[in-house]
Amino acid sequence: MAFGEETIQRETIYEGKILNLEKHQVRLQNGALADRELIIHGPAVGIFALRDNKIVLVRQFRKGIEQTILEVPAGLVERDEDMLLAAKREFAEETGLASDTWTEMDGFYVTPGYNDEFIKMYACEDVYELAEAPAQDEDENIELVYLDFDQAKTAIQTGEICDMKTIYAIQYWQLLGNR
Amino acid sequence: MAFGEETIQRETIYEGKILNLEKHQVRLQNGALADRELIIHGPAVGIFALRDNKIVLVRQFRKGIEQTILEVPAGLVERDEDMLLAAKREFAEETGLASDTWTEMDGFYVTPGYNDEFIKMYACEDVYELAEAPAQDEDENIELVYLDFDQAKTAIQTGEICDMKTIYAIQYWQLLGNR
Repeated sequence: MAFGEETIQRETIYEGKILNLEKHQVRLQNGALADRELIIHGPAVGIFALRDNKIVLVRQFRKGIEQTILEVPAGLVERDEDMLLAAKREFAEETGLASDTWTEMDGFYVTPGYNDEFIKMYACEDVYELAEAPAQDEDENIELVYLDFDQAKTAIQTGEICDMKTIYAIQYWQLLGNR
Repeated sequence: MAFGEETIQRETIYEGKILNLEKHQVRLQNGALADRELIIHGPAVGIFALRDNKIVLVRQFRKGIEQTILEVPAGLVERDEDMLLAAKREFAEETGLASDTWTEMDGFYVTPGYNDEFIKMYACEDVYELAEAPAQDEDENIELVYLDFDQAKTAIQTGEICDMKTIYAIQYWQLLGNR
């Protein structure tokens, strides 16, 4: 079976601060034309960190869902920035913590049908506090939270943990067999 | 610590077929104003199905990342449609398969910072072929693929499996302890 869609025409509908919106007209395998609405968004990083056998989370208001939730530390990779350096930077900015022992986890597209955002996950161990924490982004308001495994599972049930990368990280934690 | 952002102004930038784009001006906790770019998108469902101890996947071209990849069956929930019924419908449409034994898995927001898309995952067992498979969506071109656990892990390494919900489903499979 052949796959692919020939792009006939591209239109940029919006160019923004964190994302662009494009509309592409494509020719399908069967010859028919269709429109595709596409979000162009930079890559991101997420961090699974344990401290005293508790997961490091941040509580913040998320405008996309109009809720205050708990997530693993995460953030956008800056232009030309190395992914691992971005993870270390975001971890420090959001939590005031650091580590010298980092491991690659999976990376994944969040919704490949219409969005090119890719999230690369990292795990770190032997977490310590930075003597001088870097400044948070001025439009971020973040609280640091530590949960043990049972508390994390409870937070999934109550819905305070409700995003895909954090639930992925907690599954990964479970697979480590420490539980 | 207080959370939340007061929405001062909303602007609809684009109303599309599968998503809308809005820009909101908000007042932060510190009193400063900021803009938020937001994708409004309907909820979706994803299906983790095993048949003869192989995971049921679909191969299709994904325009958002311009690649042909392997994913668990998934699709958009129609207006006012029950989530589980949507899962059964999408499973039948994309694979020609059905099951009478469905279990709820996690549900999660994909990128809560700027997108309200929620994906609810379901597992099903005792999968069988429908005597008459429903028609696929006319703009979909889908191939059914079965992988055993080791093949699925290899497909993650090669990048043919590279989306978050499918990697989540394979972790879930691993946690079932069948491996």
